[in-house]
Amino acid sequence: MNSRNQECVEAPRYLSKEEAVAMETELLRDYRFGRQQLTEILGHACATAIAKAFPLTSLEKRQPTVLVICGPDQNGCVGLACARHLHVFEYIPTVFSPKRSPDSLHQDLTVQCERMDLPFLSYLPTEVQLINDAYNVVVDAVLGPETELKAIDEPLTSILQTLRGLKVPIASLDIPSGWDTDESSSEGISPAVLVSLMTPKRCALSFPGSHFLAGRFLPYDIQKKYELNLPKFSGTDSVVEL
Amino acid sequence: MNSRNQECVEAPRYLSKEEAVAMETELLRDYRFGRQQLTEILGHACATAIAKAFPLTSLEKRQPTVLVICGPDQNGCVGLACARHLHVFEYIPTVFSPKRSPDSLHQDLTVQCERMDLPFLSYLPTEVQLINDAYNVVVDAVLGPETELKAIDEPLTSILQTLRGLKVPIASLDIPSGWDTDESSSEGISPAVLVSLMTPKRCALSFPGSHFLAGRFLPYDIQKKYELNLPKFSGTDSVVEL
Repeated sequence: MNSRNQECVEAPRYLSKEEAVAMETELLRDYRFGRQQLTEILGHACATAIAKAFPLTSLEKRQPTVLVICGPDQNGCVGLACARHLHVFEYIPTVFSPKRSPDSLHQDLTVQCERMDLPFLSYLPTEVQLINDAYNVVVDAVLGPETELKAIDEPLTSILQTLRGLKVPIASLDIPSGWDTDESSSEGISPAVLVSLMTPKRCALSFPGSHFLAGRFLPYDIQKKYELNLPKFSGTDSVVEL
Repeated sequence: MNSRNQECVEAPRYLSKEEAVAMETELLRDYRFGRQQLTEILGHACATAIAKAFPLTSLEKRQPTVLVICGPDQNGCVGLACARHLHVFEYIPTVFSPKRSPDSLHQDLTVQCERMDLPFLSYLPTEVQLINDAYNVVVDAVLGPETELKAIDEPLTSILQTLRGLKVPIASLDIPSGWDTDESSSEGISPAVLVSLMTPKRCALSFPGSHFLAGRFLPYDIQKKYELNLPKFSGTDSVVEL
């Protein structure tokens, strides 16, 4: 066993927003990872995590429907890639992506979903019962750690309001949308499942639901520098339950 | 079961070079997939296929060493991504990438491996016994269907010569290097394992070794247009043995 494995007995460290941003900057700038590359591998890992949390055979509705709500920024990009991989995994995802994004990656990922015939909603029903009846799970890829909470406006505010009223389980990507990255929230949305990307963030420290870590590619020097103490992934898995 | 599954009882279709090039052009141009994105997902799937073909526990050498030989073009890019994921899966890959590539994706993928401390060989030993003694497997990512065979020169010619003399098993990515995409070869290298990317190519029709298909993301319309009859992948697997 090498030193990497021995370190894994400690609990993983939950990063602050500042640390998470610094780590991502280092990956993009110094390690020359590309956003397209990271988004694809994370979106794939998120779809795998959702398939673990909600196996096809466990779903209550007749069809394996999933609603994936994607914001205009990086979290929404991961959501779009996740929706596409869920489709490949034989789920039936519907996308709701309310804000046109100026980001070319976001646009390309949208075209990929559209050309693969994933249905897109033009608006989100305000009557939550319609969502509860139609979908087995709602994937929340609305806001991520990159979002300035003060800057949130419509239609995102109304979407968060709708998410708070849902009965079907929510699976949030990276952080529950609307939560501060550094603090847990009792007033925001309450996802049943949280899929942390690369590393867990501080707001997830006392998260009561199922918690997955998705994305297994961090360089050892990055793991060491940020004292991540990542858990051990099994075999070739890109996802681990914390 | 949907129509996709019913069609899978037929054997998959093996594409000509012309068809493979046309399909990739469509993915990049019409579906707006990015090269970075496809390379990452394919490199990850190749590493998974190699871990299936050569599980860590099955290796004969004391260390799980793998030599990954990467050409200067697209096949080499997938090899670099594959080497990085093999490292993450706890193999010990060494990279040999003999030609500096003008392609920025190739350069970025090289930096990622270098910064993650993967060793790079500065030359390939001509004495094959040294390779046989040091490595459990050699991954051949030298030449792909994109290569014009007439244009191959040194050092690639000598590398193919060395590969022909090896006793350790070779795992070739997409096509065995030096083979014509459209025809099987009895004089070229003889890999024990072939990992086809996205779809098998014609040269693999009578391939006698273990044959894997890596990469599970092709849009249904593409599958239909090229009559791919892809095999059924299990669960969230991105690799299937043919």
